Amino acid sequence: MATAAIVGTSGYTGQETLDRVLAHPGLELYALGSDTLAGQSADSLDPRLGRNGWRRIPRFITNDAALSCGADVVFLCLDHEKAAPIAPPTRGVVVDLSGAHRFRDSHVYESWYGFEHPASASLSSWSYGLPEVVPPTERLVANPGCYATAALLALAPIRDLIEHDAVFVDAMSGMTGAGRSPKSTSHAGAVLENVVPYDVGTHRHAPEIASVLGFPVAFVPHLLPVRRGLIATCYVRSRGVDLRAALAEHYADSHVVAVLAPGLVPELARVQHTDGAEVGVFEDRSTGGTIVICALDNLGKGAAGQAVQNVNLLFGFEETMGLRLSGVLV
Amino acid sequence: MATAAIVGTSGYTGQETLDRVLAHPGLELYALGSDTLAGQSADSLDPRLGRNGWRRIPRFITNDAALSCGADVVFLCLDHEKAAPIAPPTRGVVVDLSGAHRFRDSHVYESWYGFEHPASASLSSWSYGLPEVVPPTERLVANPGCYATAALLALAPIRDLIEHDAVFVDAMSGMTGAGRSPKSTSHAGAVLENVVPYDVGTHRHAPEIASVLGFPVAFVPHLLPVRRGLIATCYVRSRGVDLRAALAEHYADSHVVAVLAPGLVPELARVQHTDGAEVGVFEDRSTGGTIVICALDNLGKGAAGQAVQNVNLLFGFEETMGLRLSGVLV
Amino acid sequence: MATAAIVGTSGYTGQETLDRVLAHPGLELYALGSDTLAGQSADSLDPRLGRNGWRRIPRFITNDAALSCGADVVFLCLDHEKAAPIAPPTRGVVVDLSGAHRFRDSHVYESWYGFEHPASASLSSWSYGLPEVVPPTERLVANPGCYATAALLALAPIRDLIEHDAVFVDAMSGMTGAGRSPKSTSHAGAVLENVVPYDVGTHRHAPEIASVLGFPVAFVPHLLPVRRGLIATCYVRSRGVDLRAALAEHYADSHVVAVLAPGLVPELARVQHTDGAEVGVFEDRSTGGTIVICALDNLGKGAAGQAVQNVNLLFGFEETMGLRLSGVLV
Amino acid sequence: MATAAIVGTSGYTGQETLDRVLAHPGLELYALGSDTLAGQSADSLDPRLGRNGWRRIPRFITNDAALSCGADVVFLCLDHEKAAPIAPPTRGVVVDLSGAHRFRDSHVYESWYGFEHPASASLSSWSYGLPEVVPPTERLVANPGCYATAALLALAPIRDLIEHDAVFVDAMSGMTGAGRSPKSTSHAGAVLENVVPYDVGTHRHAPEIASVLGFPVAFVPHLLPVRRGLIATCYVRSRGVDLRAALAEHYADSHVVAVLAPGLVPELARVQHTDGAEVGVFEDRSTGGTIVICALDNLGKGAAGQAVQNVNLLFGFEETMGLRLSGVLV
Repeated sequence: MATAAIVGTSGYTGQETLDRVLAHPGLELYALGSDTLAGQSADSLDPRLGRNGWRRIPRFITNDAALSCGADVVFLCLDHEKAAPIAPPTRGVVVDLSGAHRFRDSHVYESWYGFEHPASASLSSWSYGLPEVVPPTERLVANPGCYATAALLALAPIRDLIEHDAVFVDAMSGMTGAGRSPKSTSHAGAVLENVVPYDVGTHRHAPEIASVLGFPVAFVPHLLPVRRGLIATCYVRSRGVDLRAALAEHYADSHVVAVLAPGLVPELARVQHTDGAEVGVFEDRSTGGTIVICALDNLGKGAAGQAVQNVNLLFGFEETMGLRLSGVLV
Repeated sequence: MATAAIVGTSGYTGQETLDRVLAHPGLELYALGSDTLAGQSADSLDPRLGRNGWRRIPRFITNDAALSCGADVVFLCLDHEKAAPIAPPTRGVVVDLSGAHRFRDSHVYESWYGFEHPASASLSSWSYGLPEVVPPTERLVANPGCYATAALLALAPIRDLIEHDAVFVDAMSGMTGAGRSPKSTSHAGAVLENVVPYDVGTHRHAPEIASVLGFPVAFVPHLLPVRRGLIATCYVRSRGVDLRAALAEHYADSHVVAVLAPGLVPELARVQHTDGAEVGVFEDRSTGGTIVICALDNLGKGAAGQAVQNVNLLFGFEETMGLRLSGVLV
Repeated sequence: MATAAIVGTSGYTGQETLDRVLAHPGLELYALGSDTLAGQSADSLDPRLGRNGWRRIPRFITNDAALSCGADVVFLCLDHEKAAPIAPPTRGVVVDLSGAHRFRDSHVYESWYGFEHPASASLSSWSYGLPEVVPPTERLVANPGCYATAALLALAPIRDLIEHDAVFVDAMSGMTGAGRSPKSTSHAGAVLENVVPYDVGTHRHAPEIASVLGFPVAFVPHLLPVRRGLIATCYVRSRGVDLRAALAEHYADSHVVAVLAPGLVPELARVQHTDGAEVGVFEDRSTGGTIVICALDNLGKGAAGQAVQNVNLLFGFEETMGLRLSGVLV
Repeated sequence: MATAAIVGTSGYTGQETLDRVLAHPGLELYALGSDTLAGQSADSLDPRLGRNGWRRIPRFITNDAALSCGADVVFLCLDHEKAAPIAPPTRGVVVDLSGAHRFRDSHVYESWYGFEHPASASLSSWSYGLPEVVPPTERLVANPGCYATAALLALAPIRDLIEHDAVFVDAMSGMTGAGRSPKSTSHAGAVLENVVPYDVGTHRHAPEIASVLGFPVAFVPHLLPVRRGLIATCYVRSRGVDLRAALAEHYADSHVVAVLAPGLVPELARVQHTDGAEVGVFEDRSTGGTIVICALDNLGKGAAGQAVQNVNLLFGFEETMGLRLSGVLV
């Protein structure tokens, strides 16, 4: 058993990480950090945490206290700018679910994130952790962005098999991808019966995708009137290889990512509330190009599920331990 | 281990029952019945059933074959009129998730369901099974309706403590409550950004609620633009007793039904995809009446979860075995 | 032509009032007030206001400036607490869309609104204006609440024909009813696939309904995952009169409120984006009670449409001038 | 005044066309055709059509009768395969809202629509009518598809200014785009909290777009959990010209299509229930490509609104007469 602390529990990714930790047979919940809830009992976040039948759950402490509590693994579930200056504990695993440590080149932060990274010297201590593509190599892990995860699950296995000058990624996410802080753009009155493209051509996940692929892609995200789930529709041109076969082979042994049979389309409903992903491959009749579509849950494989999967790899647990992967809910 | 067969697997309640059976440590999936899918592999219903990592799942057979396969428990997931004439196996547990065996008085079928019951003599062999209120007593179990479950969880424990001449139940359900067959009223174009009351004052769950309570209530259901989840808002007048205390005491030991702390309202988001229920109790400032609200998932506690809970009771398993009750998903 | 000013244009009710004023052949838009947008052009609120083809629309000025600009009619579209202390202009019509002037008894504000009314002596200068039930009689008009409008359209015409000790109003509203300011409860992540009862038994529209009916009713509102629209489902007991006939007669000549033919249920889809309302009347088979359902658009007949209707009555315009009442949009 | 007949009134596009005809000062509703409603009064389609205040609306007749009633303009609102064999009246304007007459090359029907066109010789009598791009030239008008309209409003004005070998159109539509007939894919239980790509790389609107542009594009449509509205996100590479300037100039005088100011994104909420469209232009930072986004209402500018706009052009009415273009509804 490894002990786990969560820093920033009250946000969406923090709560989902808590959900996974509570269900994980190899992790013991050790500390719940939240500056806004510090001192309160766990059910102040969600009444389900106060119900009988649950294991004892600790009260909230401050984020600083949770960070330095000596847990074997710390999940950082903060905003980019709050996570960037944090000095990680000198031992143990740390998984940062924000974007604050995804780039070794600190200029990306100025250029795409809009702030100067306050601890740029330390960026090289962190390793990006996308298990199916770039498994984590350091005890400090930068957990991928949700859109980047979907795009990279679709594209990374075939990056050497496609033309690099015409890759377009169009993606859509549920509203929990926008964070829990109320904003005019996340007000239900602005979201329901609406679809809103945003950060068109300027979203932070574009350089993250490019960084792993090794070449730039065009990327446009949209916000959907759904609570959770994300889909990335990618257009590529093959250099002559059968891209479906390449993807199917890459994921043949995965219990997390499934390449769908020909004709089946990925859809949110089958991946929501799970830590898995679906990939579909299609030929475009008009241009001869190929369309690769990946669906996942932005809070599952796109955040908390992947964080736990990274932890499993680093601790030598079974890769899918504690993940939400089973079931055929309607 | 008990063997389980599902009759009518391809509907919403059938698929959800399959989900619970697959996760149940005491049940072994023995037969999947579906007249439309007979002969096909399980993943013809949902591609998730074909993924690696799953236990071997049998191919679909006809409903008749599944009914008579000799399983220890048969889940009947058919429409009322298809379930009514079925001759149950002579041994083993049968749980009927339809309304075809909820009433001993066959006149209710003519009067409220619109058909003459073809096996009225056998109705007395069935027992209604609502574990927290009326646990099943026979091997043939009539699983309660989704609205009836919510209304009865709110009202049955206090039925002797309230005035009987002014009980009003206003309820709303997600669209999976309307069944999987496409109809003009279930077309998304008619459902999105809409709310539709239906069967106003004439819904079949009204006599079901009355049958357990022992007195009639007014009942109005509405269809919501949500996939799943159901909420019943009930107005009652106390005969002088503290209704909150009575409900809290009734559910004190339940791991399925939670009475919320004062001020907290039940909401769909916390019960969706689970087999649990939330109950809230409120005073009406204007009239001095009491409002009891119950939220549950129409496919969980309102259908498949309750069916499995009934099976657990009859087989002497732990009451919550195989149920979806944990987690704090956003 | 009468000149019109809008105070608080940037909220939902302000924007909808602007929509109606722009379409009104008898009103000339004279001033747009908004403290947050003062100095900016109209299209800073919505780019549609900057398109060619529109009449010239003035720039935003402060709310104080709009209030005192000398317009023939001022629409007050502010929060309760901001509207309460306002000294109305000494001439012209003022319609307050907030609840700040709906009660002559100032104690209601302390008791139900949570603040001491700062101008209680002036409350008697205002008249409640619900055209079909209580047409406005003064130049200062308190526009009814959205829930109160629906409940009163259903109940006021039959208030003397029903028992007064068992009236229950269960209502549901789209999210624009919760105002435009971002809150955790209006975050789309908390609204989508959810339904939330709120202010259960304590909502401010309960005393408003009671004030017009002359007796208290139990009232529970719920927030729906829809952008706009509101439905009130009311349970009553007749004193022996045919309530459908009474309602049909009351609205026989109305172009705003339609009593539906037997069997037809009111639904949001047909009243959204309109200033009309639908009323349906049903018998409850179980109890012999009657269910009266009213659907309207919370921003239309429940706010801006009714405000303009009140203005039409006071200025002697045709009652429906400038209202959105036609069309059969899907 | 011209007389108008609608064939196939009971579908979504038929009902929306009826909505526009009723509001059109230059059109007189002459005949309502519907084989399923023939003989019934207009309010059998929608109770709003029976309300007082409306102009007298005729009873439904058969589609054949409506087609041959001698109206000055006939709107064909049928499925592709039902519209294809129809022999149009020998005089008057006919607007076919289906895809049955959009191609002069009958092979497209075999190849993309899956049926052999039964009247291929007559295809040359029809002209495609997209007013801003290809105004209709014949009395027989093929009204464009909804996706094709959005893609072509974004791309046609710049077709000679962009590279032709890398154009990708990713689009999403509300559920009314899928037609009114109930199907498993349009069941709300399969649509809510979901997004489904469909006809990936094989959709019929791809050859329609290509036919107008003169070169093929990759096209992927998705079904959204919204009732109405459509957005097309197009990725192109400029040949060196400022594409925003070109689009802005092209639509400078349009009252139907608005090019948004830099930084503003098109969204469904502002075009729903209207016959207008919004276009936004963005640079992709990563690749230097350009993203052009067009939003419109699939039933408005994407169907009925455009049909009426085409009729206005052919009859010499003001182009926007009877269209829904004004208002700033929330």
